[in-house]
Amino acid sequence: MNQPVIVLVRPQLGENIGMVARAMWNFGLCHLRLVEPRDGWPNPAAGPAASGADVVLDKAELFDTLEAAVADCNRVYATAMTLRRMIKETTTPGGAVEQMNQLAAQGGRSAIVFGPERTGLTTEEVAMGDVLISIPTNPEFGSLNLAQAVIVLAYEWHRQQDTTPPVRLEGDYEGPATRETLDGLINHLNDLLEPRGYFHPDHRTESMKRTLRNIFERPGFTGQEVRTLRGVMRCLAGELNRKPASDIQGSGEISGE
Amino acid sequence: MNQPVIVLVRPQLGENIGMVARAMWNFGLCHLRLVEPRDGWPNPAAGPAASGADVVLDKAELFDTLEAAVADCNRVYATAMTLRRMIKETTTPGGAVEQMNQLAAQGGRSAIVFGPERTGLTTEEVAMGDVLISIPTNPEFGSLNLAQAVIVLAYEWHRQQDTTPPVRLEGDYEGPATRETLDGLINHLNDLLEPRGYFHPDHRTESMKRTLRNIFERPGFTGQEVRTLRGVMRCLAGELNRKPASDIQGSGEISGE
Repeated sequence: MNQPVIVLVRPQLGENIGMVARAMWNFGLCHLRLVEPRDGWPNPAAGPAASGADVVLDKAELFDTLEAAVADCNRVYATAMTLRRMIKETTTPGGAVEQMNQLAAQGGRSAIVFGPERTGLTTEEVAMGDVLISIPTNPEFGSLNLAQAVIVLAYEWHRQQDTTPPVRLEGDYEGPATRETLDGLINHLNDLLEPRGYFHPDHRTESMKRTLRNIFERPGFTGQEVRTLRGVMRCLAGELNRKPASDIQGSGEISGE
Repeated sequence: MNQPVIVLVRPQLGENIGMVARAMWNFGLCHLRLVEPRDGWPNPAAGPAASGADVVLDKAELFDTLEAAVADCNRVYATAMTLRRMIKETTTPGGAVEQMNQLAAQGGRSAIVFGPERTGLTTEEVAMGDVLISIPTNPEFGSLNLAQAVIVLAYEWHRQQDTTPPVRLEGDYEGPATRETLDGLINHLNDLLEPRGYFHPDHRTESMKRTLRNIFERPGFTGQEVRTLRGVMRCLAGELNRKPASDIQGSGEISGE
């Protein structure tokens, strides 16, 4: 699927071009086009700032005009903070990326055009865009620097392709223990608490047991975690002491059973 | 509604603290907490890098420990690139912000904890988080710098509060012209094309007129734009020439009628 092309018009600092390349490549974008970079191209300051995103810099294309840089693109997005006097379809980053994905699915290519660091795109350059992207920001403090604006668009593009579940368990999570294992823990706990007078008064016993069951059911403990917890319970109840008597003042570590 | 608190653990460079403040304030976050900043606090390098986000730096709070920095928070999100050997609920930025909003609606406060520039949080510090935030990135190039990671979270937070329509018309758009005005344009065009032999052959006349109607209906032209287009048509048809005869070689501008 066609990725959007990132076009920087008259970028001033090589460092910023490098930081843009890094932001792009962090989120999988690799087509960078430069229109009249102030200090020429290649620029030795770009590489260090790219922090390893050399693949983007190596493939960057140089153009004399914005027209030439977007000539093979089917839709051109101009980025601007403030809207000049013109009637233009205006999108959020999210709205723009949805459109780009639809266009890409039809085989079309989008360009996102960013202006120079201090001044942004001229009114004429904004007018060359089919659509304006305006990043909603704090109304009191809306000025993003160049690499920050690029990272927002690149993140948004990646976010809409990404299939990572919003919430998941990672690490060595083997899934929740079986019901039998979990019931073993809960019954063990009840058996330890009962003779120690925890369930009092009698008429509240059932609701106290229900509360405890909920506490231990909700987290989805693994079998290993249940074994660790049973060790903790036995230790608290005075039924487990792994330290040899001679080491009772030492710093022996109590690990999960 | 409670905003998430941004906690920087052992940040190294004042410039990065400033850039974090800027990224936060761009998207409306203003609660910054610093745990053991390497060069102390305040840091004279932070202000210039904040580019005007002084309100965030001025209100930044200093803590000796991560525990103290998150003591009043109801849920702590640790950020990390790679997952160490631990079972931890892990979220995307989008998933995390959804949870934060639910918590905030109940009056709870979230903290998002970022580690030092080069090393990130220690395994112990990650373990202190209730939830891990992992930003999905290019698997070949996943390392975000500190301010970039903060801007992604701050953008995502703002995005989920923001009510800006994804696609809209801005500028001086007064809405589409009335149907009568638009029909005036289309009839005018047909009347100009008919005597000039455009509608040929006869049996295609109706479909050609339908095509033209669709072209002019879809954009939702304003009344002013319709007037401009009628002037353009009249000029093309030789019925409008605003230049005085004496100025026919000059550069007089033809504006919308």
